[in-house]
This record gives sequence, structure tokens and C-alpha cells, in this order.
Amino acid sequence: MTVPGDGGGLGPLAERVPEALRRTAAYDVPVPPRLVAKLDANELPYTLPPELRGELGRALAEVALERYPDAAARRLRDIVTRQLSATPDPAGGPDARIAPITGDQIVFGNGSDELIAMLCSGFSAGRGDRPASVLAPSPSFVYYRMSAIARGVQPIEVPLTAAFELDEPAMLRAIEHHRPGVVFLALPNNPTGTMWRLGFAAELAARFPDTVIVSDEAYVAYSGATSLPVLARHPNLVVMRTLSKLGMAGLRVGFTVSTPAIAGVLEKLRPPYNLSSLDQRAAEFLLEHATAWCAERAAEVVAERGRLAAALAARGLEVFPSEANLILIRTSGARALWQRLAAAGVLVRLFDAGPLAGCLRITVGTPADNAALLAAL
Amino acid sequence: MTVPGDGGGLGPLAERVPEALRRTAAYDVPVPPRLVAKLDANELPYTLPPELRGELGRALAEVALERYPDAAARRLRDIVTRQLSATPDPAGGPDARIAPITGDQIVFGNGSDELIAMLCSGFSAGRGDRPASVLAPSPSFVYYRMSAIARGVQPIEVPLTAAFELDEPAMLRAIEHHRPGVVFLALPNNPTGTMWRLGFAAELAARFPDTVIVSDEAYVAYSGATSLPVLARHPNLVVMRTLSKLGMAGLRVGFTVSTPAIAGVLEKLRPPYNLSSLDQRAAEFLLEHATAWCAERAAEVVAERGRLAAALAARGLEVFPSEANLILIRTSGARALWQRLAAAGVLVRLFDAGPLAGCLRITVGTPADNAALLAAL
Repeated sequence: MTVPGDGGGLGPLAERVPEALRRTAAYDVPVPPRLVAKLDANELPYTLPPELRGELGRALAEVALERYPDAAARRLRDIVTRQLSATPDPAGGPDARIAPITGDQIVFGNGSDELIAMLCSGFSAGRGDRPASVLAPSPSFVYYRMSAIARGVQPIEVPLTAAFELDEPAMLRAIEHHRPGVVFLALPNNPTGTMWRLGFAAELAARFPDTVIVSDEAYVAYSGATSLPVLARHPNLVVMRTLSKLGMAGLRVGFTVSTPAIAGVLEKLRPPYNLSSLDQRAAEFLLEHATAWCAERAAEVVAERGRLAAALAARGLEVFPSEANLILIRTSGARALWQRLAAAGVLVRLFDAGPLAGCLRITVGTPADNAALLAAL
Repeated sequence: MTVPGDGGGLGPLAERVPEALRRTAAYDVPVPPRLVAKLDANELPYTLPPELRGELGRALAEVALERYPDAAARRLRDIVTRQLSATPDPAGGPDARIAPITGDQIVFGNGSDELIAMLCSGFSAGRGDRPASVLAPSPSFVYYRMSAIARGVQPIEVPLTAAFELDEPAMLRAIEHHRPGVVFLALPNNPTGTMWRLGFAAELAARFPDTVIVSDEAYVAYSGATSLPVLARHPNLVVMRTLSKLGMAGLRVGFTVSTPAIAGVLEKLRPPYNLSSLDQRAAEFLLEHATAWCAERAAEVVAERGRLAAALAARGLEVFPSEANLILIRTSGARALWQRLAAAGVLVRLFDAGPLAGCLRITVGTPADNAALLAAL
């Protein structure tokens, strides 16, 4: 069985494909072979307990599949706003909570991917003589760039420092020069795991009121860092979350939190039935019944992250500090190391070009996964 | 609980929203009240039998939700290509089948909506001095237009005749004039139910080799009409299908069938994890175990369509011929009639502006649904 390739053989249609798109390739997801440890995709390494899965299966059997999903995802929206509103507010004392998040501040996407695409399209009008653009540091989440190109918007990339830290002065200069419609900040960053200064997102929002600043918090379960407490003070700040890194990557559920005004623009771009009935029901069920289980597993991963980072450093590898569920390492023999790991059934992510050349991204697994990795090194 | 509104109050961000998008509204899906018969969304009116639902629930409980979906949807792709390849070929004799469809001809979307959006972006380069555009008859599926606007592409609309038939000469003139990248033909059409001349799609493909011609066959279960048998002869023809009208609207699974070359372009635009693990597994299960059940229910709907159309005509309403699971009627007191039906718990779709003014679109329901509708008239 074959899957679509690179789109050669278009004949007279070839010139219909926008120039920027012709030079890109589809996002490549390799097929995992038989594995001892799958540590390549920043997934939670624990599967739901059987009793929760059984209960979830019975809930899903009740879904009326012949009907369209709830286009507004009302029940899920209610759960998400309630849980977000329990976020602590560090500025308000030990028991303080942020101002309650309301349903009209939330836009759901089929994963963060779709939200990134909607942000690119929704705020893409250029300013003055500048073409439409969005800006992100690089290397960062590749979908910022891919999504911009797919939507006909210019992606501006600002290099990180050699240590994969954010170059704040370079970011400021680039934003002033290009005046992008959207700036994406992955906090912490993927694939480097580095956590930049959280307050920089709010500072950018204050300094560039006609630019949407996105605090992409996909890894918040592992970093604990969020811009939610300052969201109400910045009408152009957007917090983006996903359930993917929290043990629900198989569901495609992400959301943005913003002013109702920004949410209203994104709603114009949201396909009305972008969250399937099964995904909505499963997300409702898991947020209601598995939040504590997910948080405990995330805490285990954080503890393992420290042990694994220390063990990797002890073997002489260059280890970058991480606040996500991944560890980036750099070594002169990265490709050979990747092959040695793969031969032992341990799959990690190899980068062999650009600023990440010589790097491996290792998802933090279970203690057994991590032991298998260290044994294979 | 509130959901996002019209995006007022953007402040300095207002000018970031592209001009064409500012004038649009989000797709409005009304919340159904307590209903006797929900006949507003062209859904199959039958729910899966309990034993199938139970078995499906047990299958879904086995899905490893902590892992990302299969980005290539290999198992589902295999089932879909096998089932499509069983399509009869009328030109080849009574038992002839079309040339087998291969996996690299299929692109999956999160419903047709996402496929339409990818087609708009993928083939949007303008020709000569013409701006990027896509073309469709009007009234037709509203998402063609919405999707073009969301992707920054000009939507060209060619009016249907007063009887909602396709104006073939006007279509030819408009395509020659605008040279759109994509032409969408809903065969049969939604919301009118009218089936236009199927061969027109292939004729357009032959005449305009640098334009993608889409045969949108969302309602094939009710029309039996498909361009699949001629697909191999036209490298710029695309057949689009969805599981939504077949009893699986709650899943978000649609697909295109095309040359591998066109599929390769769309793959560059497809978010890699656009089909959730639950949706993939449910679609696999239902296509393997419920295809006969769905076909029988569709046949019942087709039989009911004839009876309902005759009963509506007998009451003096203007009834348009339909090859879909819906019947469009026109009457001078459409809004009052809609309210009368709603008061009786029968929800249908009212159109009260533009060429559809005075029309109601009625989804063909179960015999009991249709009896409730006729009783309330």
C-alpha cells in the first residue's frame, strides 16, 4: 500500500501550485518499527488504566455518530473554562486564582496545528509596505513555518543563540523591521526543551499592540509555566494549549485562550465541525476523570527527566536544559548513535541539518524506557 | 456559558484582519431545542444498532490515546481503497469494476471542509493577470465560498437557473473569463438536492486542463452517481467523498480521490495528525462492519424521499427534484411555516435571503419523522 508522494507529474496543473508551496515537502512521520521504547514524539509514556479505558469505551458507545458534533463544543468548553479558571495567580497571594476564563475566550482546534493555521490566516494583513508575515524563533516548532507557507504568509525566523536561548534583542529588531501579524513563542520550546523568559511574551504584547503574541504552552504539564495570569492585561496576548502532551495525543484537541475579540476572528476561520463527536466526548471524559492521573504521570516524567539528563551528561554528551518532557542532546556521532539506538529498538528523533545538526531529541519515557535507552548508548 | 461572537473590540489588531475576512461571519450552527424530528442537517436518521455500538465502544477502549494517530491512516486507507475499487464500471459490462484505486490517490481530511480548504490553497496560483480564484455554482455548499475567503482566494459564483439547474453555458463563460484554480461541483447539489448532468464534470476537466475539477459526491449514497469510472481518464479531476451523510457525521472523515500528483500537493497542506485515533478506528470499524447496514438505511431514505416529495407536492408546495437525502421546497410563507414546524418540534432549515429566499430544506427522516413533519404542516 502506497501513500501520496511529492506531487510530481502535475502536468498543466503544476503552475497552479503557489511558488512557496512548490519548494516544501509534506510533514514526514516515519513509521515506527517494532519498538522497545518509542521516545521520538514527546508522547506521555503511560497508557490509561484499563478501568478508565473501559469506562471511556462505554461512554463512546453512547455517542450518536449519525449526528454532527456540537459545533460549539459546549460541554467541553464548560469543563475547560472551569479548569483554566482554577489557575493560581502568583501576584495575588498563595490561594489567589486568576480572573475566571469565560467560554467566549476559548477557540478549539483540531490540535494546535489547526489553531496555528487559523492564527496565520486571521491576522495576516501586512502593515504599510510590509507583506503579510508571521514570526517565530528558530529552531522551534516546525509547524509555525509550514502553516504560514500553506496559508500564503511569509514566515520570518529569528535564530536562537548557539545554546538555543532566545535572542531577545534580535527578536525585537526583527519584529520592528518586519511588523509581523503574529509572533509564536513556544514556552518551553520544542525541539530544544529550553524555557525562555516567560515574561518576554507579555513584554512583546505591551510593546507591539498591533501584533498577536502567542504563548504556546503545549508543555505546560512539564514546565508549570503559563502566561494565563497576565492574559487579562494584554488584549493581544494568546495562550495556546493542547491535550496532546498530557496523555491524549490520539485525540486532536487544542485550544486558544484570548480576548473574545480575537476568538471571534478565529471562529470565522474555524471549520464548524472541526472536533469530532468522539474526540469531544473523550476529552470531556478524560478531563473530568483522568486529570489527577495525568498530573501524577507528568510528575513522574519530570522526576525521570532530571535523572535521565544527569545520566546522559555523565556519559559525556552535551545536554541542553529542558522544561518539557524531552531532552535534547548534541554529539559528534549523532547519526551513528541514532542507528545504534534504533537497532536496540529505541526510537528517538535525529536532526542532521541546520542549527540542530548533531542533535538527538529524546522523549523522557518510563523508568524502563529510559533504562533501555541508557543501556543501548 | 458564552461562545465567541463577531470579533468586535479588536483595537489595534483590527487592521490585521484581512479585508475579505472582516466582512464575513462565522458559520452559524443553531442549537437544536428539544426535538420530535431533527431534519435540518442532512444526517442519517437512524442510529447504529446497540450491538454494533457496544462492539465499537470496546474497539475504541483499546486505542492507545497517549500516542499520536497514524499520520498516514494506513489501515483506514487500505479499507477505503479496497471498497472504492469495487465501484462498478458501466462502460465495461455488467460485472466490470473500475481500475483499482491505490493508496497514493487518497488524501484524508477532517471532513470535506478541510479538503475544500486544502484544494483552495493548493491550486490557488492565478493565471496571467487573473487573481487567485476558485469557482462554484450558487447556491451550493456554502463552505466553498467561506473556505476561499479564509484562504485569501477570490470566490467566483455562477448563478444557477431559477429551477436550480446548472447553467452550463454560464459556467463555461465564467471559467474562461476567470481561469479559476479549482471548480467545485456538488453532484447532487446541497442545499437544493438537484442532480446536474454528471458528465459535465469530466467535460470541464477535458476542456480546462490547468484547472482542478472537483466532483463533490457527499451524497453518493442517495444518488448512486459517481465520476469514479472516468477518473483515470482525467488527470485534473478529483472525486471528493465524506462519511458524514452515511451515518457517520459525528466522525470527521472525508477523502479525495485523484492522481497521486494532486494528492501529493494536498499532502503538503494536510496537518499530519488531522484524523484522530478514535475517528480512524471508528471509521475502520464502521466501514468493515456497518457498510451493509448503512446501505440498507440509505435505501430506506431514498424510498421515503419519493413518498415525502409526493406528499409535499400534494399539499401544493413547490418541490424541487432531489437525488440527495433532502428535499428543498419553496412557498410564500416559508418563515411562518418554519415556525409552525419548530413549534411542533420539527426542525428544518430555513433560507430567507438571496436566491433561496422562501425555501425550506427538509432532511428526509424516518417514516415517523416524516409523518410528524406532514402532520405539523
